[in-house]
Amino acid sequence: MPIPSALAPAAPFSDAERDAVYKAIFTRRDVRDQFLPDPLAEDVLHRILTAAHHAPSVGLSQPWNFIVIRDQAARDRVWHAFNRANEEAAQMFEGDRQTTYRSLKLEGIRKAPVNICVTCDRSRGGRVVLGRTHNQNMDLYSTVCAIQNLWLAARAEGIGMGWVSVFRDADLRDLLKIPDRIEIVGYLCLGHVDELYQTPELEVKGWSKRLPVDEMIFDGTWQGDP
Amino acid sequence: MPIPSALAPAAPFSDAERDAVYKAIFTRRDVRDQFLPDPLAEDVLHRILTAAHHAPSVGLSQPWNFIVIRDQAARDRVWHAFNRANEEAAQMFEGDRQTTYRSLKLEGIRKAPVNICVTCDRSRGGRVVLGRTHNQNMDLYSTVCAIQNLWLAARAEGIGMGWVSVFRDADLRDLLKIPDRIEIVGYLCLGHVDELYQTPELEVKGWSKRLPVDEMIFDGTWQGDP
Repeated sequence: MPIPSALAPAAPFSDAERDAVYKAIFTRRDVRDQFLPDPLAEDVLHRILTAAHHAPSVGLSQPWNFIVIRDQAARDRVWHAFNRANEEAAQMFEGDRQTTYRSLKLEGIRKAPVNICVTCDRSRGGRVVLGRTHNQNMDLYSTVCAIQNLWLAARAEGIGMGWVSVFRDADLRDLLKIPDRIEIVGYLCLGHVDELYQTPELEVKGWSKRLPVDEMIFDGTWQGDP
Repeated sequence: MPIPSALAPAAPFSDAERDAVYKAIFTRRDVRDQFLPDPLAEDVLHRILTAAHHAPSVGLSQPWNFIVIRDQAARDRVWHAFNRANEEAAQMFEGDRQTTYRSLKLEGIRKAPVNICVTCDRSRGGRVVLGRTHNQNMDLYSTVCAIQNLWLAARAEGIGMGWVSVFRDADLRDLLKIPDRIEIVGYLCLGHVDELYQTPELEVKGWSKRLPVDEMIFDGTWQGDP
């Protein structure tokens, strides 16, 4: 039954609070190399993970888990898995593009003191999950919302984060003992930072450019290429 | 070539700024019924969409688009598509669970003055996208990060948002003229709110419960059910 008292006035944000939220959003970077060696305090890490856990989830299924990897030897093994996959990835680019690809540092697995593997339990919430009946991806999307919460909370705590996606799935699964029924959604590197790129690193390094936001917005119906 | 000056001191957050980011994260709700009829100012909507556009994207591919639907008749048609799918969804639950499901309001399509359909162009960024070589889902995940940015920016602006996922994909595609090659990731309802649930509405209404965060966190390797 509804509990009417559960509704409360939505505390408005002051201009300063609103600006702080935008500061987190606009200054968040995908960090690969700016990690400092300082350890992450456990209370800070717990706050960041609690922020992740307060992401929206389809049918309130909360399908995520966070495997926290601190051990240096374990991170070394993950780095070797990355390195093997990254060699395969480099081969997919041609000519100058491959040269540029190889010059980019794409991960901070060994440099960042904390790594977090974020998973999605596709059976959590039962056989039929409210809101997932017509889009089976919704549990994966909930898990990504948790990652983005984690990223923004980290930024506000002075912690940089990078998302590494270049792995053979089986390698990571094997190293972290993740069962087949669990989906690996993201592998994150976290550590204190005292400097960040002012624009995305891939833009700074000439790989790609920010597109104009107004080209992203359509009125009423799809207005892009057919 | 690297531009060293592009690195700048990472402006630390004051305690007040950090608290504002957490306030957005912890008080964000999936809004279905608390929308006020007040229109959304265009500058506010543009700020929120700019926040979405500053999400991380794999290889800086920025694969998202935002179809903004304001027209009442168009929203009515989308609501009918929701309603048809929701009847199918209700049938998937049994007994008391179906009764509860039917009692829940799961969308604010007609009540919220602005709806936004968020899409992912799976060909943006070319044939091979940096960071997507080993996980083809990464472009969808980037698009979800944009949605979570949008949600938190909206909260900071006093705008409530709900994510509606109960549609037949073909219905939405037809109504919004979205080509087959474009993936529909989320359908969002936005409007001003002056009250919100203090905990997730599905918890208030007895559908599900928040799990303890510490059960979500594993040390070093997977520690959940096999």
